Amino acid sequence: MKTIKTEKFRTKLHEIIYEADTPTGKLFDIILLILIILSIVAVMLESMASVKYLYGDELEIIEWVITAFFTFEYIGRIIALKKPIKYVLSFYGIIDLLATLPAFIDLIFPGLHFLVLIRAVRLLRVFRILKLVHFVGASNQLVVALKKSRLKIAVFLFNVIVLCIILGTLMYMIEGPESGFTSIPTSIYWTIVTLTTVGFGDITPETPFGQFVSMVIMILGYGIIAVPTGLVTAEFMSRDKVHENTQACRNCGFENHRDDAIYCYHCGHALNE
Amino acid sequence: MKTIKTEKFRTKLHEIIYEADTPTGKLFDIILLILIILSIVAVMLESMASVKYLYGDELEIIEWVITAFFTFEYIGRIIALKKPIKYVLSFYGIIDLLATLPAFIDLIFPGLHFLVLIRAVRLLRVFRILKLVHFVGASNQLVVALKKSRLKIAVFLFNVIVLCIILGTLMYMIEGPESGFTSIPTSIYWTIVTLTTVGFGDITPETPFGQFVSMVIMILGYGIIAVPTGLVTAEFMSRDKVHENTQACRNCGFENHRDDAIYCYHCGHALNE
Amino acid sequence: MKTIKTEKFRTKLHEIIYEADTPTGKLFDIILLILIILSIVAVMLESMASVKYLYGDELEIIEWVITAFFTFEYIGRIIALKKPIKYVLSFYGIIDLLATLPAFIDLIFPGLHFLVLIRAVRLLRVFRILKLVHFVGASNQLVVALKKSRLKIAVFLFNVIVLCIILGTLMYMIEGPESGFTSIPTSIYWTIVTLTTVGFGDITPETPFGQFVSMVIMILGYGIIAVPTGLVTAEFMSRDKVHENTQACRNCGFENHRDDAIYCYHCGHALNE
Amino acid sequence: MKTIKTEKFRTKLHEIIYEADTPTGKLFDIILLILIILSIVAVMLESMASVKYLYGDELEIIEWVITAFFTFEYIGRIIALKKPIKYVLSFYGIIDLLATLPAFIDLIFPGLHFLVLIRAVRLLRVFRILKLVHFVGASNQLVVALKKSRLKIAVFLFNVIVLCIILGTLMYMIEGPESGFTSIPTSIYWTIVTLTTVGFGDITPETPFGQFVSMVIMILGYGIIAVPTGLVTAEFMSRDKVHENTQACRNCGFENHRDDAIYCYHCGHALNE
Repeated sequence: MKTIKTEKFRTKLHEIIYEADTPTGKLFDIILLILIILSIVAVMLESMASVKYLYGDELEIIEWVITAFFTFEYIGRIIALKKPIKYVLSFYGIIDLLATLPAFIDLIFPGLHFLVLIRAVRLLRVFRILKLVHFVGASNQLVVALKKSRLKIAVFLFNVIVLCIILGTLMYMIEGPESGFTSIPTSIYWTIVTLTTVGFGDITPETPFGQFVSMVIMILGYGIIAVPTGLVTAEFMSRDKVHENTQACRNCGFENHRDDAIYCYHCGHALNE
Repeated sequence: MKTIKTEKFRTKLHEIIYEADTPTGKLFDIILLILIILSIVAVMLESMASVKYLYGDELEIIEWVITAFFTFEYIGRIIALKKPIKYVLSFYGIIDLLATLPAFIDLIFPGLHFLVLIRAVRLLRVFRILKLVHFVGASNQLVVALKKSRLKIAVFLFNVIVLCIILGTLMYMIEGPESGFTSIPTSIYWTIVTLTTVGFGDITPETPFGQFVSMVIMILGYGIIAVPTGLVTAEFMSRDKVHENTQACRNCGFENHRDDAIYCYHCGHALNE
Repeated sequence: MKTIKTEKFRTKLHEIIYEADTPTGKLFDIILLILIILSIVAVMLESMASVKYLYGDELEIIEWVITAFFTFEYIGRIIALKKPIKYVLSFYGIIDLLATLPAFIDLIFPGLHFLVLIRAVRLLRVFRILKLVHFVGASNQLVVALKKSRLKIAVFLFNVIVLCIILGTLMYMIEGPESGFTSIPTSIYWTIVTLTTVGFGDITPETPFGQFVSMVIMILGYGIIAVPTGLVTAEFMSRDKVHENTQACRNCGFENHRDDAIYCYHCGHALNE
Repeated sequence: MKTIKTEKFRTKLHEIIYEADTPTGKLFDIILLILIILSIVAVMLESMASVKYLYGDELEIIEWVITAFFTFEYIGRIIALKKPIKYVLSFYGIIDLLATLPAFIDLIFPGLHFLVLIRAVRLLRVFRILKLVHFVGASNQLVVALKKSRLKIAVFLFNVIVLCIILGTLMYMIEGPESGFTSIPTSIYWTIVTLTTVGFGDITPETPFGQFVSMVIMILGYGIIAVPTGLVTAEFMSRDKVHENTQACRNCGFENHRDDAIYCYHCGHALNE
């Protein structure tokens, strides 16, 4: 008897948590959505000294409410599943766990907010935003297009990095520590800042020759940016192409039939006789 | 008798204001065009302390002339229409109203120029520039292409924002308030400045590790910029593609038939019975 | 008799100056090429205080040699033509004239180097670089592609400018003179700096809300840059398309013939029987 | 007898160094890979004052180990080949030599680390990274696409440079030395920084007119960036296009026949007689 009741309960729970087509399921999702956003906002506000000083306690309370909910959600998700282990070890399972941990760690080690590690753990709460991706979902098309051109992009990046290391060393030789190029890594940082057309201006060439090389680097970066764009665009386009063969209909002579066409779209005559 | 006269008058007015093919209509449009540009220039000049100090009165006069004209235009537009309510509540109806209000508000509350709100209202006059779009008109093609890839762009932006929030928090953990990353929102601001390759340089990483993460962010941004470009380009190109409709075959249910298809390419059944 | 000799002379001159296939013609072109580059370099060096201080006289001499040559070239070009007026009033005719004038103006008004106007005139010599385009020639393909998408780009720019004026005014309202947004034109300057992802950092938002609006502007700019790229790319592609018709060969059934095809490329059978 | 043994030895050596399909060959490649990366890291660390101060000796030792290995590798590569001269003079042959030289030069001229030339030679070790390209290999597709649009890109760059020289001179005339535009080369540097949307902010226009011209330059740069992107994208796409060869018809001289064409599309004459 009991087993049946727990079974019923689990089914109901699964409906609420994992499905969105029932009213309760929808409600649950909406509450979750609001709490996630609220939680992110709370983390942000907490990081602002002035706000924390004024509303520290309120934020603390909000934090506890959210944590409580997330804890119940996590437990619920585990109970609702027959084989929860798969979920627990899944990407979102870990994210969900990390969403609850920080507050409890605070509870166990109070007054350590300023320890870098703890601070880091507290900030892990930001990763809760990834739970939003549950709702929106990553753009499959984008992912596919990027995956397809994955290798090309990797080779491209490898070449860019090699280029940046060589150019960075060159700039280090030319400018030297006097004008902010204190070391090769710093020079490489500057080179990437320049090649990607970000251009912070925290480090800038001062010698005429250094400025000349910078110009070359900028023009290079201007041209290089065309490559990933070209790759991704080509990928997007090729995805969109309608595959047609070039056979003509024996009956009416029309062509540009789809590869999977069996009958002529114009006269209805069978194509492959 | 009178009604006929008013009718005549309204028709004439409609011709002048809403049509551009009559000489008077053309003249009206040209005057309007000049006054709009003049008005924008006036607002800009007024915002420049030195200019306002020297030519404050002249600008005031110009402002009144323009306002008078826009007021008559607004009234005219209402009179000229049989059912003006639709226009009054339309986007351009509101713009036209906002074009006249500020000056009158000044008239009612004089000497309040420095109250932020009033200042804001005065600056609303800049929106008159949108009246220019009457003449040029938005690029339909662009609008269509952007509309078509609206959803993809939205998903793309959502992912970018999620990425920026996480990277921003990361940089806040690494750099901390010492090097200008005073709070998570500020760090996110910096991340967007960097990812979009704007790179103001008002905040820059100082720790080696922070600079390393910055490099990754920049390279990322360099690659990410390819995505919207690819999307929009693909959209522009798709205009040239083979047009297929979404009707399904009554017989076999297959879809993606060419617009000029008469028979189903799969079962050879006539499509438009 | 004389006329014939002058005629001969003019023909020879025309050969040397306007043609490149004779040895003397080639030689002339090479000398011209070298002198143009030399002249540009001279102008640049002269603008560098230290260099001018050290090598002022040498640069003066070089300047005179170049001017002398360009003067002879200009006179030569006029003599060599039967109807020189067309050349004189042509774009390159004016450029060639401007290439010689500055030095003579110096000669007539000596010691006025520091008068802005004269300085400007002296710098006109830089436009001699346009004579290089004689040799390289503008990329016709590029010009065609850009010309074709001229209107679209114009509409696009118009919309961008309207956007910048409105956003600039908005930022002026939010930030105000305290944080460097001293006037609406300055704010618009900042907006364009940001939207185009240049990001000098000479003016940066300081209020949280200002930073928030900046983020929106940057993301906008990130998306907007996709539009001209899409337009130009689409233009380049459509240019490259091979125009084929969809008729099939009555004899062998092959299709995708060129529009100007008269015979089947596969069986050699006449197509339009 | 001896010759046979050396022959055997050389074959074995060739297998190890030049082939990757034998266990020893794989091992050799992995060791090489690790040592190259290690060497690059060492050069970088050495350039950081603090690190060099603390771990100077360790780095020296690592350097010697790496150099020893690279020396043996270089000698090995020469021995392993029957005609080593081709390799010695090849690009990678020189790179491999440069990878060993610096340390030995240090050995011959000790205590000259601070002489710029020697420092430069030491930094040549960074070029060892190009040996990595052995393993990854440049992206042929990219290379092909870039090579194909080489000429177009060259013409594009030439036009951009001409534009920058003229705009740079213009800005020098407008802004002058007061606001950092100390000379024409500096102004051109600024123009490129702006046109490529890098925007360091080390030099910024201060006069209203200068800011206006800057806006035009930025908008220009915003549009110009579309050109290389368009070129490269079009190139990437063209891979999918109909392939035509450049042979001319023996009969009518028409060209641009399809690769699979057997008869001239214009006169129907057989092509490959």
